[in-house]
Amino acid sequence: MATMEDIAKKLGVTKGTVSKALSGATDVSETLRKSVLETAVEVGYSRNRLPNGKKLCLFIENMAYASPSDFGYDIIIGFRQMAEPAGFSVDVVPLDTISQKDVPYEEYMLQNGYLGALLLGLSLNDPWIRQFNKSHTPAVLYDNYIQVNPSTAYVGIDNNEGMTMTVSCLKELGHTKIGYLSGALGSYINQVRYSAFFRSLRKFGLPHDQSYAGNSYYFSECLEKHLPRLLDKGVTAIICSHDLLAHTVMLRCHELGIQIPGQLSIVGFDDLPLCAYTAPPLSSIRQDRLQIGKSAFYALSSLMNGTPISTLLLHAKLIQRESIGPAPAKPASDESGTCEEQRPTVQEES
Amino acid sequence: MATMEDIAKKLGVTKGTVSKALSGATDVSETLRKSVLETAVEVGYSRNRLPNGKKLCLFIENMAYASPSDFGYDIIIGFRQMAEPAGFSVDVVPLDTISQKDVPYEEYMLQNGYLGALLLGLSLNDPWIRQFNKSHTPAVLYDNYIQVNPSTAYVGIDNNEGMTMTVSCLKELGHTKIGYLSGALGSYINQVRYSAFFRSLRKFGLPHDQSYAGNSYYFSECLEKHLPRLLDKGVTAIICSHDLLAHTVMLRCHELGIQIPGQLSIVGFDDLPLCAYTAPPLSSIRQDRLQIGKSAFYALSSLMNGTPISTLLLHAKLIQRESIGPAPAKPASDESGTCEEQRPTVQEES
Repeated sequence: MATMEDIAKKLGVTKGTVSKALSGATDVSETLRKSVLETAVEVGYSRNRLPNGKKLCLFIENMAYASPSDFGYDIIIGFRQMAEPAGFSVDVVPLDTISQKDVPYEEYMLQNGYLGALLLGLSLNDPWIRQFNKSHTPAVLYDNYIQVNPSTAYVGIDNNEGMTMTVSCLKELGHTKIGYLSGALGSYINQVRYSAFFRSLRKFGLPHDQSYAGNSYYFSECLEKHLPRLLDKGVTAIICSHDLLAHTVMLRCHELGIQIPGQLSIVGFDDLPLCAYTAPPLSSIRQDRLQIGKSAFYALSSLMNGTPISTLLLHAKLIQRESIGPAPAKPASDESGTCEEQRPTVQEES
Repeated sequence: MATMEDIAKKLGVTKGTVSKALSGATDVSETLRKSVLETAVEVGYSRNRLPNGKKLCLFIENMAYASPSDFGYDIIIGFRQMAEPAGFSVDVVPLDTISQKDVPYEEYMLQNGYLGALLLGLSLNDPWIRQFNKSHTPAVLYDNYIQVNPSTAYVGIDNNEGMTMTVSCLKELGHTKIGYLSGALGSYINQVRYSAFFRSLRKFGLPHDQSYAGNSYYFSECLEKHLPRLLDKGVTAIICSHDLLAHTVMLRCHELGIQIPGQLSIVGFDDLPLCAYTAPPLSSIRQDRLQIGKSAFYALSSLMNGTPISTLLLHAKLIQRESIGPAPAKPASDESGTCEEQRPTVQEES
């Protein structure tokens, strides 16, 4: 573990100067302060205890969290429910690509006196993601896995299990051709779910060539290109990588005159509060977000105490609602003609 | 959550009788007690709190644990270090196939008043393994993964990471043909490591057809059949699924006149205390067993508190010792002739 002395020696200044620079004293020049921070990161220095209390940072990106119906809300609550009684204060800091380019992760943490962080919603091309390969300041990433760094941990749900449960349930309902629609594969978790889908199909002996899935960053591409293609293949059930996409697919099916679940079963992922209120109510693979927040705090406090947790996953749960039913005798494509023909009239739903 | 009343109703007896049967009172017949236990398991009853304190059970099979140099010793210590200050007593119970056939897992737990269990060393064909698909009494399994049961959790190290680190390190040392020797694939963890080996080879663009690995329950088969085959293929490094196998391979190489690491690098798995004392000292992928024990208690207490942990993995660490070195200009097979020819003189090492 690097110390303030290591930083002082490397820069040829006194330990007192390093201490002042790290604590933000005003009699240290901004240039020196920047050098101290950069050197601190370089030698692998991270704070053990702060003069002004124990502070954690919860970074959040690409994720709504302001109201109880937002995905991030309960994760934050769960994290705070554990962190605050343990004597930590928690700052919630919105993150974007630009701010990540401005300040490296570890500099930000040192500058602001944080002992560790939980990061929600980062995608694989976020600038900080690469920094986590070598960072020393404890970081727990929700739905992102950093290999070979004992200062980082991945928390989330067991997506393989969620997918297995769903395919198993659909197979029991008589579905043999199951499709998958996914958001872009530039996120770790979309990659995990995509692989999990095909692993589950293979496990249950169902047809599983690549054409049973489609992915895109754009809802419109999923609706206009992949959905008609899956219907033409004769799928009788579609799993979607997240609930908003599943909901949009249901709306499109209404337009196409396809009955859910009579002709097509739909399952989402995450079990957002909205699932109970869609028409019909949407079946979904639940992520228990309160428990994720709590577990994330456990993982972070373990990292801070030197227990190198790599991965902490919670069991998934399939919440069955009316959007799934027995497989129809004939797939939707046989009754409504090929969906391809209807493409020109399509409007984007999202 | 099923209650004593559910059991009483199902059997047509009073709640008092159920309570007496569960607490082992002597005025309940053995037949009735057995019915109560079986019904308790059937309705999914598990104890919340015991009259005589909070008891946990640590089952252990196929694993030495009596002395500090044994694999299981530190796991037990770590588990106790967390459990006992939290007010639990821990019984260590050796397990075998016969005792598992005698009493189902949940009946054993209820009969003996245990709130939850940690299970070490079970293999996939152990009778209890199948019962964990539907059990209700919290169970944490070291190195065994039970899908779709929120009352079970899997703890261990991140074997994929350990394998990635090892293959990466060997590749940096110039090795391009890497072999793998494994114990029988009837254990979950051997399957995980086997897949991880090939995943790592693919990741680093190294030759990865199935013939680069060999597995057997018997050391002799690894030494007489697979080792010569790998050497004939021109491998310059061999990873073994556990340290005892790696040690035996090193001894055999001495007999064959193959220099380690001059002609062949060897890496084990687990980092048993013996690794520091072999000739040469054996590089190995460490499992931090004390931390595994501590994490197992966390997972168990989470399950007991309703946080459905599925998987808790610790970071792996490659401990580099003298058994690995730069890849030789020529593989061992070129200098010592084909090893196949020497097969008849071979004696088993284990």
